[in-house]
Amino acid sequence: MESVKIGSVGLGRLGYEHAKNLAASIPGCVLHAICNVDTSRLRAVAEELGVPHTYTDFAAMCADPELDGIVIVSPSFLHVEQIKIAMEHGKHVFCEKPLGTNVAQCKEAEKVVEAHPELVFQLGFMRRFDPSYAEAKRRVDAGEIGKVVLVRSCTQDPRSTIESTLKFLPHSGGQFLDMCVHDLDLIRWFTGSNIRNVWAIGGVFEFDLCRELHDTDNAAAMVQCENGAMGFLFANRTHAAGCNVETEIVGTHGTLRIAPVGARNLLQVVDEHGARQEYYPDFMSRWHTAFLAEMQAFTDHIRTGTHPADLTVYDGTAVSEAAYRCKESFETGKMLPIR
Amino acid sequence: MESVKIGSVGLGRLGYEHAKNLAASIPGCVLHAICNVDTSRLRAVAEELGVPHTYTDFAAMCADPELDGIVIVSPSFLHVEQIKIAMEHGKHVFCEKPLGTNVAQCKEAEKVVEAHPELVFQLGFMRRFDPSYAEAKRRVDAGEIGKVVLVRSCTQDPRSTIESTLKFLPHSGGQFLDMCVHDLDLIRWFTGSNIRNVWAIGGVFEFDLCRELHDTDNAAAMVQCENGAMGFLFANRTHAAGCNVETEIVGTHGTLRIAPVGARNLLQVVDEHGARQEYYPDFMSRWHTAFLAEMQAFTDHIRTGTHPADLTVYDGTAVSEAAYRCKESFETGKMLPIR
Amino acid sequence: MESVKIGSVGLGRLGYEHAKNLAASIPGCVLHAICNVDTSRLRAVAEELGVPHTYTDFAAMCADPELDGIVIVSPSFLHVEQIKIAMEHGKHVFCEKPLGTNVAQCKEAEKVVEAHPELVFQLGFMRRFDPSYAEAKRRVDAGEIGKVVLVRSCTQDPRSTIESTLKFLPHSGGQFLDMCVHDLDLIRWFTGSNIRNVWAIGGVFEFDLCRELHDTDNAAAMVQCENGAMGFLFANRTHAAGCNVETEIVGTHGTLRIAPVGARNLLQVVDEHGARQEYYPDFMSRWHTAFLAEMQAFTDHIRTGTHPADLTVYDGTAVSEAAYRCKESFETGKMLPIR
Amino acid sequence: MESVKIGSVGLGRLGYEHAKNLAASIPGCVLHAICNVDTSRLRAVAEELGVPHTYTDFAAMCADPELDGIVIVSPSFLHVEQIKIAMEHGKHVFCEKPLGTNVAQCKEAEKVVEAHPELVFQLGFMRRFDPSYAEAKRRVDAGEIGKVVLVRSCTQDPRSTIESTLKFLPHSGGQFLDMCVHDLDLIRWFTGSNIRNVWAIGGVFEFDLCRELHDTDNAAAMVQCENGAMGFLFANRTHAAGCNVETEIVGTHGTLRIAPVGARNLLQVVDEHGARQEYYPDFMSRWHTAFLAEMQAFTDHIRTGTHPADLTVYDGTAVSEAAYRCKESFETGKMLPIR
Repeated sequence: MESVKIGSVGLGRLGYEHAKNLAASIPGCVLHAICNVDTSRLRAVAEELGVPHTYTDFAAMCADPELDGIVIVSPSFLHVEQIKIAMEHGKHVFCEKPLGTNVAQCKEAEKVVEAHPELVFQLGFMRRFDPSYAEAKRRVDAGEIGKVVLVRSCTQDPRSTIESTLKFLPHSGGQFLDMCVHDLDLIRWFTGSNIRNVWAIGGVFEFDLCRELHDTDNAAAMVQCENGAMGFLFANRTHAAGCNVETEIVGTHGTLRIAPVGARNLLQVVDEHGARQEYYPDFMSRWHTAFLAEMQAFTDHIRTGTHPADLTVYDGTAVSEAAYRCKESFETGKMLPIR
Repeated sequence: MESVKIGSVGLGRLGYEHAKNLAASIPGCVLHAICNVDTSRLRAVAEELGVPHTYTDFAAMCADPELDGIVIVSPSFLHVEQIKIAMEHGKHVFCEKPLGTNVAQCKEAEKVVEAHPELVFQLGFMRRFDPSYAEAKRRVDAGEIGKVVLVRSCTQDPRSTIESTLKFLPHSGGQFLDMCVHDLDLIRWFTGSNIRNVWAIGGVFEFDLCRELHDTDNAAAMVQCENGAMGFLFANRTHAAGCNVETEIVGTHGTLRIAPVGARNLLQVVDEHGARQEYYPDFMSRWHTAFLAEMQAFTDHIRTGTHPADLTVYDGTAVSEAAYRCKESFETGKMLPIR
Repeated sequence: MESVKIGSVGLGRLGYEHAKNLAASIPGCVLHAICNVDTSRLRAVAEELGVPHTYTDFAAMCADPELDGIVIVSPSFLHVEQIKIAMEHGKHVFCEKPLGTNVAQCKEAEKVVEAHPELVFQLGFMRRFDPSYAEAKRRVDAGEIGKVVLVRSCTQDPRSTIESTLKFLPHSGGQFLDMCVHDLDLIRWFTGSNIRNVWAIGGVFEFDLCRELHDTDNAAAMVQCENGAMGFLFANRTHAAGCNVETEIVGTHGTLRIAPVGARNLLQVVDEHGARQEYYPDFMSRWHTAFLAEMQAFTDHIRTGTHPADLTVYDGTAVSEAAYRCKESFETGKMLPIR
Repeated sequence: MESVKIGSVGLGRLGYEHAKNLAASIPGCVLHAICNVDTSRLRAVAEELGVPHTYTDFAAMCADPELDGIVIVSPSFLHVEQIKIAMEHGKHVFCEKPLGTNVAQCKEAEKVVEAHPELVFQLGFMRRFDPSYAEAKRRVDAGEIGKVVLVRSCTQDPRSTIESTLKFLPHSGGQFLDMCVHDLDLIRWFTGSNIRNVWAIGGVFEFDLCRELHDTDNAAAMVQCENGAMGFLFANRTHAAGCNVETEIVGTHGTLRIAPVGARNLLQVVDEHGARQEYYPDFMSRWHTAFLAEMQAFTDHIRTGTHPADLTVYDGTAVSEAAYRCKESFETGKMLPIR
């Protein structure tokens, strides 16, 4: 089977990670082109990774007839427009979260995807590709824990990276949009249900700059699903121990926990602090395997002509809707229905 | 220092536990009398534990001039009346939770306690006396985790005891009143704040009898504290692994977790199921040390003429108020302010 | 059933612990007398614990007709002589480890015990009474892990207590006699077999004073049991994390581990050091429950006229023999048969 | 930098794994040729992995001037001969353990390697490349745990794979040579010392076929290092929970443990068996990351003209010597010096 040729747009932190993975670590995949507005960055990455083609214009890259698929890791406000361009050029699309920066954009993306049913469309909810999350999903689907009652999910960013986080904050959309979308996706995925009601709270407990930016440094929300299942999510920017993402799925007959201690490897240290395990230092190292797996899946879908079974454009819309409602709930102090 | 003489009322499951502890395992304490309506049970326990005096009438027991303190483990609706009788006879009082079966009763209890400032009054929030919870509180108070951001607490009853639970259900007041009061107490204790708003959800996921009794088998609530801290509580009656009570206190500089795995001892089993630890089979064994410690504290307060520093009758009222509001929130589907 | 009356000799660190437990925390037991050469210490403890009778002469205490049993926590070289005196006065005896300071003494103790089959004789191998060890033994005996293949046991003393340890070192007999006897007892107990061969090694890795005293600060031994099972023991005086005693029992169908992390309670701390649990600070707190349970067992044996099923004077001899052979093996550099 | 071209010999279970990794997952590396005696297997793998050249004759493959390096995963008795052929053709060599099937062979390999100092020679001690082991080594070297006192290492094979294991048993050399070489390598690596004395014991506890083949199903050895550090190793073929390799490095100031629970991912299951983590099912999945990392290291050494800093042919000899002495010690029942 021939290798698929991928073009990738965006060379920020995550864009570079995807490019590096695509260039060297995904069997069956070739990173054929990259696109970025900063030409010096573009050249440097192309040389380092041995990428044959470079573009500053996204549409020009999409016009390359050799390309099979496009990986979109550009700023969020460009996602929907780029999905459209890529699909209209007949390219399969992988798009990083969020799908769009508002619900109207998401709906537009739905139409584009619906107009090209022959093309693969995959969203960047990489947690689903992490081996522990994937195994949890298999067990839930196999009925091993009975009916899902509660999904609790927390996303904690290391205090040590707060400086760089604060820089991105003004354009991040706030904790609910920036951090909690992954947890909302997991709640929907594990309960197999849409969300009906949300109540979101939070505050600034440490970093005053968050207050000036009308954002929070710690936030939580409880959600009620349409099928009666319950969800709780918590996000903070002040985690001392490193990057931590923990999810618990309580069923009527058993409970699954992913990363109750998010240990970065199998090393245990016993010293004057007790017996301890250290966390992943950042999200990039935490999700390295998942980033590889989602690109492998995208490549395989293209090669085999299949589609992601349960990760569709509609999931992107539903998660965005829920995240916006959480934000609104937090701002108004009201418990709100999703629709 | 002379031993204090205790009279105890109620010989149900927990009443018997307290009686046994008071009779044999609390240095400085003598179980002088027990009171129960069922005379054959009364005689049997008195003989087994070597208790010299027995009563079927509570007021008569309180009239015994030799008694220093009364331990109330009777049905909830009798609590306030018995507190009154005991205190009017000049006895120190330990009362099991809940303080009363409605907020008006709690307010009445407050007045009784206020009228006898010289008498010890202690409530049965035994979790605070568990060594792990007590150490967590010391660390929080010492500022080790910074400002408290979130308290998450869950109470899970073993599936295996569902039969006996269902028997008590009609008189239990429902999951929020029966199970969640302890979690609400912990949220107030660790945040150092009253609760301002609650939203409670839940449902019947397994045991249809719960539905007939207008109760739930799985319930959750999110609360917002007056100082901005957040709380989440979850209760279920369907826990496969045994008795589980887990509490997490997230601070701006660190997190404390009590019983992320509520292992009953230090034994780890490695077999075809993996590496595993087993839970306490029931709440009685889980809290055995705490039950001893709270009775030791009650005894010591009487002997030294001191009062529980931060466990007052007002805590009983505040927790009851919050629990009733959770119940009302669940029933109306609305997010509600406490007052 | 009437309470048993106990007299206790020795008020060192462990002697005081036993006295305190006997005085206040063992149902069915009364601490009737204590004996010590230091009269001011004797009076102080008697007053604190409310012990009615005090003696400086051990034989005089044993002559008290009201006493049922004697608890011996005196210096090791006195053990056998005191067992003899106590039993000849018709008293049940609990004796701390070691049984004697050499094998000849142990043999003498055997004869004394054999001459009084009606009297309870119990040795201070308290680990067997720890809830986790006791549960492990029940599971091994029930065949849950198949045939026992290997018992690995390590005893680690906190670095922080090295000062006080070094004071006792000259009279301790060295690491094999002082620390490893408990591990040797566990190996025999869990394998159900005597030890056939030993090879012991070790050295001074940190505390030069150990070398001057011809002792080690870290030592290990491998043993081969008569039934083919294997044993490994390790002792150190340099443990940074606190008191640690860990035992692993590998069977053909499963493995049991006691205290792979010897966490002092159910608290987990998550901070800049990772997710961690802290150890017991010292052996007294680690074995508190076990010390209570062994005294309860001694009391119950006296009250019910029973004998410890598998904890006899011969275990004391066998463990001492093995420990002496380890010491000899270490000193000669040879692998040695026990007999 | 140009990619290095690798030829690989041997397509057994591990040979296939290496080939697959080399073909697709090692940036900077191309699997240019494979060699195997079974031509149908050879063709099938070449087609599946897209390998352009195939050989049935090892020397013929080595004559290919395009090849930079050879990966040897053939039967052990061929290793030294193939190292010689490859190096005489000027190829860099990666050789799976064991270096040779006796010490004389190892010495011969040493001479070959010494004769070609410009060529990379790397041995297949993949555990050193596992992220947890690598981090442990960095911490030990940085002095974080003080002086190394004891290295304990155990290798446990899943019961479930016993059928396939028993097939290989007649040619495996026995547990000490087949399983314990990795543990002996770790003891030398972490203590930074050669081994001076060994005593090995073991037996057949379950699988009678092992006895017929003069092998064991459970074996242990204690070793004394030249620098005084201690080692203990244990191997069994009867592990119920899956593949388990655990190593503990006790230092004077701290302890490092790799895989006290060798959980295959971050999933924790809570059900009627308690809270549990499941093990890797087999050694292939346990060491997947390490197999990748060692091939990446081999590739990088070739590309950068460097040599493995502390993984030399002499380590292969020293480990083989120690393993043979363990076997001899077990067979004679004697404690033995290495030399």
